[in-house]
Formats: sequence, C-alpha cells, structure tokens
Amino acid sequence: MGFFSKDIQSFDDLFVHTLQDIYYAEKQIEKSLPDMIEKATNPQLKQGFQLHLQQTGGHIKRVEKVFEMHGVEAKQVNCPAIDGILEEASDVAGEVDDKQVLDAALIAAAQAVEHYEITRYGTLVQWAKQLGRSDCASVLQQNLDEEKATDKKLTELAESKINLQAAE
Amino acid sequence: MGFFSKDIQSFDDLFVHTLQDIYYAEKQIEKSLPDMIEKATNPQLKQGFQLHLQQTGGHIKRVEKVFEMHGVEAKQVNCPAIDGILEEASDVAGEVDDKQVLDAALIAAAQAVEHYEITRYGTLVQWAKQLGRSDCASVLQQNLDEEKATDKKLTELAESKINLQAAE
Repeated sequence: MGFFSKDIQSFDDLFVHTLQDIYYAEKQIEKSLPDMIEKATNPQLKQGFQLHLQQTGGHIKRVEKVFEMHGVEAKQVNCPAIDGILEEASDVAGEVDDKQVLDAALIAAAQAVEHYEITRYGTLVQWAKQLGRSDCASVLQQNLDEEKATDKKLTELAESKINLQAAE
Repeated sequence: MGFFSKDIQSFDDLFVHTLQDIYYAEKQIEKSLPDMIEKATNPQLKQGFQLHLQQTGGHIKRVEKVFEMHGVEAKQVNCPAIDGILEEASDVAGEVDDKQVLDAALIAAAQAVEHYEITRYGTLVQWAKQLGRSDCASVLQQNLDEEKATDKKLTELAESKINLQAAE
C-alpha cells in the first residue's frame, strides 16, 4: 500500500485482490495437505485428503488461467484468514493423542478450509459475472463446484464413519 | 497444554474444545460488527449488520446454555481462524476508498465470517448427536440455521444491489 493512496480503487481492483487472496490460500493449502495426509489414520480419510491435494493443484492452475484471461499478473497477497484457519488446524491436531479423535479433528479442520474456499469462490463467481467476465466466472465456478463436492464428501465420511469411531 | 500431556484426550474433550473455539469466535465477531456497521454505506447492508449483531448476542447465550447443559464451564480458547478472518476483513476494508466498492468488500468479509460459523456449528451439531447429546445438538442447530439464513440474505443483497452499485 502506498503512503497516501489506497490500493483498491475500483470493483475490478477488488476482484483482482480477492483472486490474489485465493491464489495464496490455495498454495498454502497445497503445502499443508501432506501433513494432514500423514496424520490421518482412517484409509478413506487419507485417500480423501490425497484426492484433495491433486484437486488443489488443478485449482491453482485454474486461478492462474483466470489471471491470464483477465490480463493481470498471477500474484499472491497475504491472506491472514487461511493462515489462521491452517494454524488452528495444526494447533488442535497437536493437542489430540487418540488416533480416532484426531481423525474427527482433522476432518473438521478440512471442512473449515473448504468453507473458506467456498465463500471466496462464491464471491469471485458473482463479481466476475458483474464485471462482464462470464468466461472467468465459469472457470471459477468449476473450483467452487469441486470445493462444495469435497465438503459434502467429508460430511458424509464424518457422519458414516469418522465420528462413530471417535465416539467409541 | 501441560508439558507432557495433550489436552484433548476424548471425543467429548474435542467437542468441548470446539465449543470454546466458537464461543471465542462469537465474542470476537460481536466486537467487530460495530466497526462494520459504521463502515457500511448501503442502508440495507447497515441494517443487515445491525440485525446480525443482535443475533450474535443470542448465539453467545445459546453457546453458554450448551456449556451449562453439558456440565462444563463456559470458557474461551484462542481461535486463530476467526482472528485471521477478521484481520483480513479489516485489512481489505482499509485498502478501499470508494464507498460502493467498500460495501462489496464488507459483504464478502461478512460471508467469510458466516461460513466459518456454519462449518463450526455444522460440526458441533453432528458431534453432539454422536455423543448422545441431541438436546445440545438442537440448541446448536438453531445457531446454525440462523447463520445459514444470514449468509443467504447477504448473497441476495450482494446480487440484487451491492455488486451492481460497486460495478457502476
């Protein structure tokens, strides 16, 4: 930020800023998932996180594509929100000893991450449309749909297996 | 945390820890909403935030009720996730000069807060049920329902008014 000016002047600037925010967030998620895969015990949960890691790579590519389509440089801005969500995930996991309870904590942490992505992509899709960039909106919609599908799968896994095992 | 022990031993401990987390989060949200109300320009958005502030007071009381029902002291634990989400909201708002663009940024920030609450209450409701505390689950469900309704209202307001004005 400059000393006497504010960096976000227009709605388009806000769109680009939020794209930079989710770009940073996706990259941090990509870095943190291997640790979650390692900590998970339930094979389905481990597999779910592995799939999510692959998907995250695809999401990053799509965000880069949107930067390109929109004619701006692919750049990250700090995103204290995802830093906080990931820090909390790591803190809580460090407090849990029992493997089944840890799986329940990990799945809740992953869902907090998903919800952050859902809200940001939801916003970005609407803003892209409003800016007349339905081409960008449809690329971002693909990420949004995948995040929602992952969140749903995590809920199903939690309810059908992970929470039952944690409560034993 | 003790030096040689981990604080979360059981699924019940994890439930209580997450209740303490959302208790802290709700209190931080209550503190930050007056600033968002002040910054908002659109009267409907201002009113929406005011209603949310009232609701947040009710949510805090319900969480306190669940602590009591569950026979544990109402206590907060630090929640880096909500701290990060609120810090980001404040950072972005500080970068925006135009009032209409600021409203769009504020509504997106509020939706990030809502989504954090939705994921945490969603988890807590399922965990309470699994722990045989359907009484606690139904109190937490009321908060979950209100958070979802607020998020939906914010989306409608964004799409029908705020984003249109921001893009002008």
